[in-house]
Amino acid sequence: MAADWKPQHFAWSVEGKVATVTLNRPERKNPLTLESYAELRDTFRRLAYAKDVKTVVVTGAGDNFCSGGDVHEIIGPLIGMQDAGDMDGLLRFTRMTGDLVKAMRLCPQPVVAAVDGICAGAGAIVAMASDLRLGTARSKTAFLFVRVGLAGADMGACNILPRIIGSGRAAELLYTGRAMDGEEAERWGFFNRLCAPEALLAEAQKTAAALADGPTFAHAMTKKCIHQEWSMDVEAAIEAEAQAQAICMQTKDFARAYYAFVNKQKPVFEGN
Amino acid sequence: MAADWKPQHFAWSVEGKVATVTLNRPERKNPLTLESYAELRDTFRRLAYAKDVKTVVVTGAGDNFCSGGDVHEIIGPLIGMQDAGDMDGLLRFTRMTGDLVKAMRLCPQPVVAAVDGICAGAGAIVAMASDLRLGTARSKTAFLFVRVGLAGADMGACNILPRIIGSGRAAELLYTGRAMDGEEAERWGFFNRLCAPEALLAEAQKTAAALADGPTFAHAMTKKCIHQEWSMDVEAAIEAEAQAQAICMQTKDFARAYYAFVNKQKPVFEGN
Amino acid sequence: MAADWKPQHFAWSVEGKVATVTLNRPERKNPLTLESYAELRDTFRRLAYAKDVKTVVVTGAGDNFCSGGDVHEIIGPLIGMQDAGDMDGLLRFTRMTGDLVKAMRLCPQPVVAAVDGICAGAGAIVAMASDLRLGTARSKTAFLFVRVGLAGADMGACNILPRIIGSGRAAELLYTGRAMDGEEAERWGFFNRLCAPEALLAEAQKTAAALADGPTFAHAMTKKCIHQEWSMDVEAAIEAEAQAQAICMQTKDFARAYYAFVNKQKPVFEGN
Repeated sequence: MAADWKPQHFAWSVEGKVATVTLNRPERKNPLTLESYAELRDTFRRLAYAKDVKTVVVTGAGDNFCSGGDVHEIIGPLIGMQDAGDMDGLLRFTRMTGDLVKAMRLCPQPVVAAVDGICAGAGAIVAMASDLRLGTARSKTAFLFVRVGLAGADMGACNILPRIIGSGRAAELLYTGRAMDGEEAERWGFFNRLCAPEALLAEAQKTAAALADGPTFAHAMTKKCIHQEWSMDVEAAIEAEAQAQAICMQTKDFARAYYAFVNKQKPVFEGN
Repeated sequence: MAADWKPQHFAWSVEGKVATVTLNRPERKNPLTLESYAELRDTFRRLAYAKDVKTVVVTGAGDNFCSGGDVHEIIGPLIGMQDAGDMDGLLRFTRMTGDLVKAMRLCPQPVVAAVDGICAGAGAIVAMASDLRLGTARSKTAFLFVRVGLAGADMGACNILPRIIGSGRAAELLYTGRAMDGEEAERWGFFNRLCAPEALLAEAQKTAAALADGPTFAHAMTKKCIHQEWSMDVEAAIEAEAQAQAICMQTKDFARAYYAFVNKQKPVFEGN
Repeated sequence: MAADWKPQHFAWSVEGKVATVTLNRPERKNPLTLESYAELRDTFRRLAYAKDVKTVVVTGAGDNFCSGGDVHEIIGPLIGMQDAGDMDGLLRFTRMTGDLVKAMRLCPQPVVAAVDGICAGAGAIVAMASDLRLGTARSKTAFLFVRVGLAGADMGACNILPRIIGSGRAAELLYTGRAMDGEEAERWGFFNRLCAPEALLAEAQKTAAALADGPTFAHAMTKKCIHQEWSMDVEAAIEAEAQAQAICMQTKDFARAYYAFVNKQKPVFEGN
């Protein structure tokens, strides 16, 4: 199913159980457009029903991740809406971009971002909304909304970023729009690890493939729990996990792991 | 308006669009008193309506930030209330101090703390409640309520501090009351960066001035969103930001940034 | 009262006001069994009413903390429940394990984990659910549920772990099940500090004894506030602390600290 998906505004490939999304307008550092935003949102929504894809890698072509919303193709039209007093149009836009983040978090597949070079604006948000992030030392991640006269409050950043890097560091990045370099990003917990640029994509795909070979039904439950327990108190979260894990204890993967252990073999998970 | 404000219990100055609060009883390391607490609270409440001040710096005179609530002028009277069984008086006091933190978070101006030397008790809380924090290597930040026989649960510390430095480190500071040195504070994300003591205030004012020259309407929205999304789930936060950013897309600053970019100029923001 | 407690499935000792729980099947790296889980849960529940114990240390015998749920004594029976379609049994089990975490968080005593060697699965959860954590450089902490075909959503991990080390790092540990070494654990804020293996237990008991000599009524309030404010917004948390601290201001320990200060003495706290 997902192998047949043919998006128009970014590259899409499936190898084994891993899909790779490549933002591919490298001559402009892979900006997002109204079309690519919508297609990304639709792609992650489709993934909710895709059984053949178990993990997703998001990356950019040509040494950059993503330069964010295109000035001419997105900001220009938004200024036109401002001129026209078109609040409906503006809110439709901000809700559409927010829907991309929601779709990334609601699909069952863990998403691994592979970030090199420029990772700015909406690009930084796509990285932030991923589940794991690999980066390079030379990468520059900037939540630069303030540079275009806007709030750092974009696509959930004021809620999600503080939980990754702490609220003091998140506040600095959101108020100033300054770039976080790769070393800082690793030190602060934004990147899970740094890779050499030439190895980055392969490392991300290897990480994604390893997860795809794991108990993917359980991975999806982990993702759901991280998501739904975001604002729960501890008691409610413990009960939610008691139910979630009891469900996972009914899967064949749980039995596969047990019998493999007993027989001193490596388990072969099938995601059910 | 804010330029005319004449507080009695700390120094207040306004330069350009930046106000500076200086706790100024340096011979006693700038303790807070019942009067200065109340006046700080009132000042941050006034700032909610001040159009001439866009950012605020909080600092202390003479190589120390703040030694916290004065033993003789605050703890003594509280012990008197205990003797008298005056729960109403005690609760009025704890609510007043909490109101200072609320006022700091509810005013639209980003608050930058410049922390050198001793930063203890309520002083550590004032730093914690700021939006950005610059410190020095020699600074000592201590949530030392436990040393005076009280809980670490003071002015929101159990809620706010874990979100800045993580809940394991916050627990240690709150249970033991031990001082966090400047290097730790930077490494843990409490300080955004360390400065040389002689450069600290100027650096903080420069940071504040740069923010004041930015899109301050948008900054206020960033601050509001960080605040209001504290305990929201992800979906609610994304919707809150879709609305917040759509409002910012109606501002002239957004258009100013766009036209400056198109004309290859530096934008001049006006905060509207 | 607590000094008379005689658990069957782990070692229990009380020295002064500090209790030490030692998981003690060192030949198998101290796995948990159905019986030890239940007894740990009951022990922490009893501690809610124990007046003679003020802090608790949790450790493992023989150079390891805990290898988690025993494959033969726990996973085997769970697979039997799966075979029998016994969802009630599975959910009883996951709720019992979650109840241990709840009991650790709801008892008034701060809990200090002393972690050396293997700290895996439910063992990692017990460390995570403690209030403070001391570790060794050679320790290996692994949330390895995924390795046995299950979700990282176990006993509250998706809720609690991100608040200690940030959500990006927590996601990596929960999705991959890989071990976090001691240096990482300190750098990420999971361990409060590293100790030499031969000094670890003594350091943990010293830390616990120092807390036990502090204002333990106030400590219990700090613990309660950290717990109950987990998902509160800032305003609600500040009000909760205004009430909590006003209560602490009625304690004799608060007066003891004040009079000791005035008389230039060291306060002697009694926990009331």
